[in-house]
Order: sequence, then C-alpha cells, then structure tokens
Amino acid sequence: MRLSRYFLPILREVPKEAEIISHRLMLRTGMIRQESAGIYAWLPLGKRVLDKICNIIREEQNRAGAVEILMPTIQSADLWRESGRYDDYGKEMLRIKDRHERDMLFGPTNEEMLTEIVRAYVKSYKDLPLNLYHIQWKFRDEVRPRFGVMRSREFLMKDAYSIDLDFESAVTAYNRMFVAYLRTFARLGLKAIPMVADTGPIGGNHSHEFIILASTGESQVFCHADYLAMDTPAAGVNFDDAEELQSIVNRWTSLYAATEEKHDEAAFGVIPEGERLSARGIEVGHIFYFGTKYSAPMGAKVTGPDGVDSPVHMGSYGIGPSRLVAAIIEASHDENGIIWPEAIAPFSVGLLNLKAGDAATDAACDSIYATLTAKGVDVLYDDTDERPGSKFATADLIGLPWQIIVGPKGLAAGTVELKRRADGARETLSLESALARIVG
Amino acid sequence: MRLSRYFLPILREVPKEAEIISHRLMLRTGMIRQESAGIYAWLPLGKRVLDKICNIIREEQNRAGAVEILMPTIQSADLWRESGRYDDYGKEMLRIKDRHERDMLFGPTNEEMLTEIVRAYVKSYKDLPLNLYHIQWKFRDEVRPRFGVMRSREFLMKDAYSIDLDFESAVTAYNRMFVAYLRTFARLGLKAIPMVADTGPIGGNHSHEFIILASTGESQVFCHADYLAMDTPAAGVNFDDAEELQSIVNRWTSLYAATEEKHDEAAFGVIPEGERLSARGIEVGHIFYFGTKYSAPMGAKVTGPDGVDSPVHMGSYGIGPSRLVAAIIEASHDENGIIWPEAIAPFSVGLLNLKAGDAATDAACDSIYATLTAKGVDVLYDDTDERPGSKFATADLIGLPWQIIVGPKGLAAGTVELKRRADGARETLSLESALARIVG
Repeated sequence: MRLSRYFLPILREVPKEAEIISHRLMLRTGMIRQESAGIYAWLPLGKRVLDKICNIIREEQNRAGAVEILMPTIQSADLWRESGRYDDYGKEMLRIKDRHERDMLFGPTNEEMLTEIVRAYVKSYKDLPLNLYHIQWKFRDEVRPRFGVMRSREFLMKDAYSIDLDFESAVTAYNRMFVAYLRTFARLGLKAIPMVADTGPIGGNHSHEFIILASTGESQVFCHADYLAMDTPAAGVNFDDAEELQSIVNRWTSLYAATEEKHDEAAFGVIPEGERLSARGIEVGHIFYFGTKYSAPMGAKVTGPDGVDSPVHMGSYGIGPSRLVAAIIEASHDENGIIWPEAIAPFSVGLLNLKAGDAATDAACDSIYATLTAKGVDVLYDDTDERPGSKFATADLIGLPWQIIVGPKGLAAGTVELKRRADGARETLSLESALARIVG
Repeated sequence: MRLSRYFLPILREVPKEAEIISHRLMLRTGMIRQESAGIYAWLPLGKRVLDKICNIIREEQNRAGAVEILMPTIQSADLWRESGRYDDYGKEMLRIKDRHERDMLFGPTNEEMLTEIVRAYVKSYKDLPLNLYHIQWKFRDEVRPRFGVMRSREFLMKDAYSIDLDFESAVTAYNRMFVAYLRTFARLGLKAIPMVADTGPIGGNHSHEFIILASTGESQVFCHADYLAMDTPAAGVNFDDAEELQSIVNRWTSLYAATEEKHDEAAFGVIPEGERLSARGIEVGHIFYFGTKYSAPMGAKVTGPDGVDSPVHMGSYGIGPSRLVAAIIEASHDENGIIWPEAIAPFSVGLLNLKAGDAATDAACDSIYATLTAKGVDVLYDDTDERPGSKFATADLIGLPWQIIVGPKGLAAGTVELKRRADGARETLSLESALARIVG
C-alpha cells in the first residue's frame, strides 16, 4: 500500500482523554476514532490488525474442530426470558423496542441463541460432539466505558459453544479449547497464562481465565514463574485424542496461577521465593463449562445411545479480538510507539523513501515494493514528500516490524538501511541482502 | 471438511413460511435460521458463502483504490441531527436509548458517520481523492420483513464513500466504483446491468442501480438485450486513468436500461423488437453521487489549491452481501436445489463415499480428500453412513459445483464418477483423471 493513497491520520498531539498507553497510541496512530462514549470506528490501520487477530483465532478454532457460524446482533427478549436472564442482566444490557413494540436487545453474549439453535436441529448423540463459534459485535452498556477498546461498549467477541452428551465428553471439549487458546495466544505473540477462575453455582474446576502480564494490567495476578517458559502445544496436536489433550491441560494447570479473587496466599507461599511471580495482568480469554444451565430450562435435549433424552452439556469460550488489540499494545510498546508482533502487524514492512521525487530513490523503492508485494509481503510504502525525520517518527510510532530506509546517499553506494523495530537494530546492506533478510 | 464433523442441518420438509425459492432453499439447506422476524443466524454453509461474496467485493474495492475501515453498528442520534435525517428517517430506523437515556440508533447506513470522520481528519485537497468502505451489519426496521435474507431487518452491507475536491474528480470516483461493480458482479457469476436510477433533489445522472434478471425478481426492468453479452472490464483496468474509466462507463450506459420507475416506453420502443428485453429484476447494488448533501451541513471542508475552504463532494456505493446470497440462488437453481457459481460455492467439491466403513472406499476417499485439500480445494467429504440416495439428494440440494462419487463397484474397476452440478453431466473415469479435471 502506498501511503499517499492510504488513510493514516496520525495525530501529532497526545489526546488528553486517553488514560492508558494503548488508548493513546491507538488514537495517535489513527487506528480508531471514538464515535460515542465506548463506541469506536476502526480506521484502516486498526482494521488490518483486528482482521489479522481474527484470522489467527479462526484458524485455531477450526484446527480444534469448532465450526464457524454468525449469529445476529439483535436478539429477541423472549429467548432471554426462557433462561431467566432477561431480568437478571441489569443495565449493562442494551434493551430495545422495535416498531411493533416488541422487546429486543443487542446481544451481550449468545448462550441463549446458541442453545435455541441446538434445540432446533440437534436431536441425537450421533450429532455430537459439536462446537459452534462466531466472531460478532456485542454490546455491553458499561456505566463508565474507558481505556478505549480495552473496555468499550460495542466490542468484538469470538464466542464458541461446545455441545456434548455428558460431562466426560464436555471435559474433552473444554480441553480442546484450552489447548486452542494456548496456541492462539502464542501465535499472537503473547504469553498467556491460564488461571483458575470462578465457577459460581456451577461448581467444579472447569473455568480458566487467560491472562497476559502487562504493567498497566487491570488486576493483580499470582503465578509460578515457570509458566513464562512453558512450551506451547504444537500445531500437530491431535484434537481427537482425549488423553493427549488432558495431559497438556494437566501440565498447564500443574503450577500455581490465580487472579486476585481466587488467590490463596498460603499455596502461593509454598513456591520457592525466586519462582514466585506477582504482577499486573489483563484478561484476554475465558473458558467455562456450565453444564446444563441453559439446555435444561430451554429444553435442548438429545437422545442418548440408551434411547433416553437428556439436556446437553455445554461450555462457552470467549476471546475479545478488539480488546486484544489494546492488550497487545500494552504488552508491546516503547517510548517511540507500538512494537507489533510479526504475526499481527498491520504491515510487515515500512518502506521509507527519503527523497520522493528523486528518480533514483523512486526507482529503487518501486522495485523493492514490487518485489515484496509479489512475494505476498504486506508493505506500507511511504512515498509522501514528508521530511525524513517525520517519516522515521511515523514508522516507529506505527510499529511495523521492519523498516527499509532508502536514501540517495546510500543508493549511490549501492546500499539501503534495514531497521528492526523491536530492538532498533540498524544495518546497512545491499538491496538484495535486505530483501533476502525479509523474505527469507 | 468431513460432513460427520460439520453442522449441516438439512430440512427434509419445505418450510411453509417461505414464499420465494431462495428462502426455501436457504432454510432447507441449513444455511440460515430465523431468530426473530427478519433476523437470521448464518449457519456454517451460509456463512461460507457470505464470506466468499464479501472477499470478492473486498478484492474489487481494494483494486479500485478504496480503503477498508469498520464503523460501529450503534450510532449517536446527534450525528443524524446534524444532517437533519434523524427526524426524517421514520420508523425504519431502530431508535435506542442507552442507560444514560441518550438517544442512539442502530445504523441503517453511514453517510453521517463517514462525513464526521472526514471532517475530523481530512483538511487539504492533498489528502484527496479518498474512498473509504466498510462491510458491516445494518438494521432497517421494515414493517413486514419477508423473503428471508432478501429483505431482512438486520442485513450486511458493503458501503463505500468517495470524498473529492470537486464535481469533476467526484465523477471519476463514481466511475471507479461503476467499473468495480461490473467486475464484482461478473466474478460472482452474475450478469448485472447498470440501470439509470433516481437522483432526487441532487439531480444529474450519477445514480445507477445494478440489476440482475431473475424470474422471481421484485420489479419489472427494461433494457437492450446486448447488455447480456457485453464484456466485463479486465482486471488490468487502470483505475488512475479517468479517460479509460469514462470510456467503459460510456459503453455500459450507451444502451437503454431502466427500472420501472424510470422507464420511458418511447425510448424503449426505438430498440429493434428482437433486441428489447423486458424481465423481472433484483437490485443488487446502487451507486450514487450526492455532492455536498452531508458535507455542507456537517462542515466537512478541505482547503483547495487556491487556499479556499469548500465542502467535499461525496458519493456512496452500496452492495448487500447477505441479500446477494439470496439473489444468486434466485438466479441459479433447479428443481433439485441450488447451483452455486464456482467462485462463491461454499465448497468446490462434494466427495460422496457410497459405502462408508468399507476399507477400500474409505481409503480411496481419504486419499482424494487429502490430495484436494493439500491443493487448496474446498471439499465437503460425505463420510456419513447415510444411504447413497440420500447423499445424492443432499449433494444436489446444496449445489456444490462438482461431485466425486466413490463406490465399491467403480473402485473395483478402477473408476469413480464425476458429476457437474450445473448441467448434471456425469462421467466415469479414473481417480487420477477426476482429480486432474478439478485441479486443472
């Protein structure tokens, strides 16, 4: 993409209303624009990151056997009356009356609707196991939305729902998502630690929050330091092998890890002092087995192999892609701007033409741009007539992993500069070597 | 995808509530489920088609230089008060009060919000031309929603907005989208004819509806039959060349084409009788130049090369992907079910194992499935233990372009059957030849 044809409205001043660094950086880099309190438009740079995150989530959901659907945003209140949650939900639910005065709402989550779909179509244990997910905008009418897309009212959520005949197979379904989440966060460039979470009246121990560590995190978390070095399950993990899944989950739950609410100082104290980690954390995912909480009242039953009908066992599995964009920035930035992990960078390479309009630099940049684009590399080509200093600042601010800097002086010597954003390392090398470094 | 692990809830009975064939077929094939009047969940098969349509739209928007963003669904009423449309819009607008009693609404379209974004960031003629688009769910509270996703309340729309300094460059922007739409519909397997549409108080002749012909169409349309054979602009068209664009638009507007509202019987009568086409049509896109209608009242101005500030000239360009799914089925089905155009088929190939559980057929199917999947071909592998007759019926109903039929008898002779859904042509040939036919 040529910057001269792109829409990248960089703000020179730091917006005052933004309290946390990710919000400030997302506004400054023109990733988002606030349209109302807690409601944001995603501008081109932000949209690209959001899409890349969603695609990684999608790939790992599919790998684990979940099937994608798309439920609508507007739901009937009647569905929520069936589960009893319409009255319970409180003011966070955006309630709506349509032109016929029917009670509707903007979905804050989809347990009821998904259970309705299951009730309509799934009749036999032979149709199970099943896991359906969607990535759709949700609305929660927070009293005081803040921190940008970290805690917005309209937000994107991937929510998956597993449907199984009994508790045992539901646990395997839970484990599939546990493993899928480990892989997802690792691919996003994050160290996410599964921490025991509340199960409320459901009981049991099948509820985990996935937490990333960031100094600006919303809550205090406690865990064994070994989590930071633990191996992520490989892409080849067999999601049909219940034992393999369980052994991965066992390993990842064998050490102490808890959020503030579930923290047990005594158990934490048992960890040798040098291996205790107490830090701020941001929740980026939550998985939860809730059994027959919705299927029983809503009558979502299947016939078992014994001919007996019983309500299905379900779990839900959420990740907030829009929130993740902010969380990743909280975890990965410096004083000059964002540092995108390679997998979700809006572009992999920034190509800086230091003298646009000069025949030689233009020709060199055009050739680099064409070569990389043909190889499928996303390049943002700064072909504008801004000063070099401004181009350097913008490139650092928006945090693309690589910068190729092309100026007339270097070109005369047959070289360009290659800068790695993560550590600022700069190298002067031939054009061919620079390209080889990027396309491998 | 193995059917045994997929969620494809085929209905054996034709739902009574569905009046038109696309609605019946989408319900029967488990593409959608109605969740409320005019509100649908997209089940896996439907979601795949919707995604493929969106991707083609996206590729052609990008090719024409439009840049993707994503605006939120919920908007502030204040924005619409600025343009004067909040009161004008009537009951089709879903009006909402949030917990602080602020007037909000579910966006039926985004002219106001886009104009607000332009006003915030675009200050100089040097930032133009610009075309921003998004693909987002909209809501229009129809009194009597019907015909399934053809006329639903919650629907997906791609809406692009061009922003230019003056009328002349706005016309070029309009022509870019005109050409992009011709390419988009052709890639979707549709013959879409641009027809003169109303411009209301804006005046001029820069408003076209793109209409496809289908016997179940919602309105009568009239055009020269030569439109059906007209060449689609090539992928290499230069979207920077205003003259090239204008010459394509001239050619595509040189013959008579009008919807019922704009029909001129006298002008139509001039066409030689054998070349007159009068048929039912479905609107699948609309492009419209509306000048300074929003930028003037909302103060979206840029400084021109002469140092004078003036409101930008804008146009909007809509396509409804969710509606398109239904429109394509209306245009492409037979008595056995849907016939998907290759580019948007949910899967390219249905692989029918006629004796699942038999070692030889299983092995042959597994090998075909692995080979095609490795080559990037989308395959739906019917590995269930349904009867062959039921598998044939399902394959025809869901309308995948190719069926590879594998049975023990054929295998013994070293052959499989390849069926083309479009014309029902069947061939018996070796496994290798069948694969070669598909991967080319």
